[in-house]
Amino acid sequence: MNVFRTLVLLPLLLVLPVEAVWPLPQFVVSSPQVYPVSPFSFRFQYSASSAVWEGCSVLDEAFKRYSRILFAGGAQNPGTRPEDVLHGAASFFTLAVSVTAPGCDDFPQLDSKENYKLSISDQGFLLTADTVWGALRGLETFSQLVWRAEDGRYLINKTEITDYPRFAHRGLLLDTSRHYLPIKTILETLDGMAYSKFNVFHWHIVDDPSFPYESVLFPQLSKKGSYHPETHVYTTSDVKTVMEHARLRGIRVISEFDTPGHTQSWGRGFPELLTPCYNGANPTGTYGPVNPTLNSTYHFMAEFFNEVSFVFPDFYIHLGGDEVDFSCWKSNPHVREFMKMMQFGNDYTRLESFYIKKLMDIISRYGKGYLVWQEVFDNHVEMRNDTVVHVWKGDKAYLQELAAVTKAGYRALLSSPWYLNIITYGQDWTVAYKVEPQEFDGSPEQKALVIGGEACMWGEYVDVTNLTPRLWPRAGAVAERLWSNATVRNLQDAYDRLSDFRCRLLRRGIRAQPVYVGFCDQEFEGL
Amino acid sequence: MNVFRTLVLLPLLLVLPVEAVWPLPQFVVSSPQVYPVSPFSFRFQYSASSAVWEGCSVLDEAFKRYSRILFAGGAQNPGTRPEDVLHGAASFFTLAVSVTAPGCDDFPQLDSKENYKLSISDQGFLLTADTVWGALRGLETFSQLVWRAEDGRYLINKTEITDYPRFAHRGLLLDTSRHYLPIKTILETLDGMAYSKFNVFHWHIVDDPSFPYESVLFPQLSKKGSYHPETHVYTTSDVKTVMEHARLRGIRVISEFDTPGHTQSWGRGFPELLTPCYNGANPTGTYGPVNPTLNSTYHFMAEFFNEVSFVFPDFYIHLGGDEVDFSCWKSNPHVREFMKMMQFGNDYTRLESFYIKKLMDIISRYGKGYLVWQEVFDNHVEMRNDTVVHVWKGDKAYLQELAAVTKAGYRALLSSPWYLNIITYGQDWTVAYKVEPQEFDGSPEQKALVIGGEACMWGEYVDVTNLTPRLWPRAGAVAERLWSNATVRNLQDAYDRLSDFRCRLLRRGIRAQPVYVGFCDQEFEGL
Repeated sequence: MNVFRTLVLLPLLLVLPVEAVWPLPQFVVSSPQVYPVSPFSFRFQYSASSAVWEGCSVLDEAFKRYSRILFAGGAQNPGTRPEDVLHGAASFFTLAVSVTAPGCDDFPQLDSKENYKLSISDQGFLLTADTVWGALRGLETFSQLVWRAEDGRYLINKTEITDYPRFAHRGLLLDTSRHYLPIKTILETLDGMAYSKFNVFHWHIVDDPSFPYESVLFPQLSKKGSYHPETHVYTTSDVKTVMEHARLRGIRVISEFDTPGHTQSWGRGFPELLTPCYNGANPTGTYGPVNPTLNSTYHFMAEFFNEVSFVFPDFYIHLGGDEVDFSCWKSNPHVREFMKMMQFGNDYTRLESFYIKKLMDIISRYGKGYLVWQEVFDNHVEMRNDTVVHVWKGDKAYLQELAAVTKAGYRALLSSPWYLNIITYGQDWTVAYKVEPQEFDGSPEQKALVIGGEACMWGEYVDVTNLTPRLWPRAGAVAERLWSNATVRNLQDAYDRLSDFRCRLLRRGIRAQPVYVGFCDQEFEGL
Repeated sequence: MNVFRTLVLLPLLLVLPVEAVWPLPQFVVSSPQVYPVSPFSFRFQYSASSAVWEGCSVLDEAFKRYSRILFAGGAQNPGTRPEDVLHGAASFFTLAVSVTAPGCDDFPQLDSKENYKLSISDQGFLLTADTVWGALRGLETFSQLVWRAEDGRYLINKTEITDYPRFAHRGLLLDTSRHYLPIKTILETLDGMAYSKFNVFHWHIVDDPSFPYESVLFPQLSKKGSYHPETHVYTTSDVKTVMEHARLRGIRVISEFDTPGHTQSWGRGFPELLTPCYNGANPTGTYGPVNPTLNSTYHFMAEFFNEVSFVFPDFYIHLGGDEVDFSCWKSNPHVREFMKMMQFGNDYTRLESFYIKKLMDIISRYGKGYLVWQEVFDNHVEMRNDTVVHVWKGDKAYLQELAAVTKAGYRALLSSPWYLNIITYGQDWTVAYKVEPQEFDGSPEQKALVIGGEACMWGEYVDVTNLTPRLWPRAGAVAERLWSNATVRNLQDAYDRLSDFRCRLLRRGIRAQPVYVGFCDQEFEGL
């Protein structure tokens, strides 16, 4: 099936747009020969050999989405007009999509395959993939291959692509505690992630300043802990909207409920969860980290994380565990007594470990895995083998940390050089781009334990007003580093493609900021 | 006239919102006593004693604008509902505006008075000002004094304000050459400027990368020199729209057509204007600065700046004159010959001066004054006494430059520490805020020659996607430094008011980024 009725070959020798794909595919062979792709005569189609078919939500929706996206920019002068089609004057071009494995209703997972092959040739347009997730990646690539000639026609070059990600975990963190982000902004970020082949949305949903997550079991948490209990919260329905929007784009959602530090906002609804700080013999009225000495704390956490396990179906939960300030624990006489009883001496990392270990046991009981910030590893907490350690500290020291984590047999995620909230003047995307996550002293087995990384957009100075331009296209630098081959490092080439990618984001309605001096044919118009 | 029919005094003792005015007025006395200001029973009115009256475009439009702005945020629960007014149950509150000097149709000028007095008391609400421009400043202050109580009512405290600007020239520069900015974005920037009492829009309209100004006499300049001759240009009508929008807000528009450097885009329409660069005896095909050796250059400039003089009615034109690269001039044998003929030796600053001097003579013939970047002064160009020297270089050296410029008797503008395009992580507004433009060794007469400064937003990394959040509220720091008393320097107080000002900008639809962690009751909704 899927053979063209007629083939229209256009003798155009303009730019080879294949090279503009972002992130760059693993293997690309392209030719100047082009085929027209008309908004009026092109469509996506399931291949007869495909294990999934119409009714597959992920691909049905993707076909709709990409039908819109392909011709974003408006076809003032399309090569094939509707009349041509009606009178049979034009041929019908189809991208046939064939997926090997059945399954359309699941969530993507860490080990989901994302490889695909795309063939644009005289034999037809064919996209094959092991899974629907791979098909999504291929559709994105296909959409980036279509370009618009000066006469207004949309064209695609003869191309063969074999592609797969270098790393399985390609994440982006948003922080919805320091500033609240509307659902609409989160959904737009997921769109941008799909365009650059990110596959994990790390939702740092609560932290010290606010608790916007509306818990079913403990509504007081957001009622008291959010900036505003009506306008600045995420309802169960909001979370579901995010989950489904992400799933349809092959993006996992990993929630982070960071404890025992970064929990001031929890205390507004449940002060008994936190450690009262003391000045000598008297409570100061302020609170420190979660109180690890009380059984009630673990009862609460068990119930709370049971809910979280259901609401966020991904196998992994991010447990945080970073930046625990011991001073309040040290000030509290009950905590000191507990330390004595447990024979921890004066080593408060042992108290932290005690807490984290108990929390991990809770999570394990729910059949879930966990990610933790690097301190949990640094403080020698006993962890399951499948724990993922999230490296965020240090300037260049992150390479040593990656070596240490993987030497201990744990899997590692890198974020240290990818804190996109930290802005500097100029083309700072190049700094993120030059990073090489496996450039540490270690065995091949160790390097294989680096499963990816995450771009982090912490929220101190970021909210709905500036998130999108600050994120795009800078996050694209991380996306390509995590997807493309390690050899893809040419900065000039990356600059050209990233500038092009940025204009594409504008055409798709995403307020991406400029890479440098210049313009896009179609500037941002969502004013 | 303007006496209240009844006075409703509310015994509320909440925050004193007067302190939230940005920039802080010179003299404020306020009291906890409040008056209600209802969206349904409040209006602006010309005082009988006023020299201007209905039909005064500047104030008619301002009354309309501020009637909208005052109650931005939606009055879900106004204290006085429409029915109350209809049935005579509520009193009618009026701000009576009285202006001493007639004149509503002119453009504001460097020496326009902006002082005003605002009295909110049992005797009524009264705003008096010497000119309509001062009345505009007072209206802005009035709008910032109105606040919303928890029960939804809009209130204003009993207040007496005497206010005037510290500096006469409070500018903001936009660069529409490195990236094109749509008119809509420029108008929005003018709105933000009016909210923070800036009074000069410095339009750096053309530069090396593009020439978006559509010249009537020389249409080739933008036809060839713009990024796109239809979508990326400013037509005469666009410029008029900007001029009038600015005028109605008491903002001067000063255009900059920078020469002899920064002129690559001029050369695309008129290559003969620029100096051909040489490699030995052969032209390289590239061009350098404007060619100062040809009579045709001056004929062109005379005609071009004649047009500019009409299109931009402000007395001042910014002539640029910065960063002239001498290497191309040095490479060109004709230029070298000219140098010899003129007995300039090897001092190319003398050639630059020769050019600038001739250009200044042209401008003077048109009855205009000029501003120049500091190099023109540094290179000892002979200038008129009323020249304004724009200081932009250096880290701390700008204080020495200000001293030198004013010692030579010239007026000075400061921009060096206010390059807002240069971003750093964190609350970098404090750096701009701490600047003290008169903190140099010099006589009182010298200090009086510092007529103000400008915040600059150069366009290398800025376009419509990120301009507004990058500008606001950071530019506010410069606005307060230039308007408020030199003693207004408390950072904590400024932080509180600036955060409040930022939320106000959001309510008015301006995408201002957060100052730090937190939230606004009404977040940005223009998604």
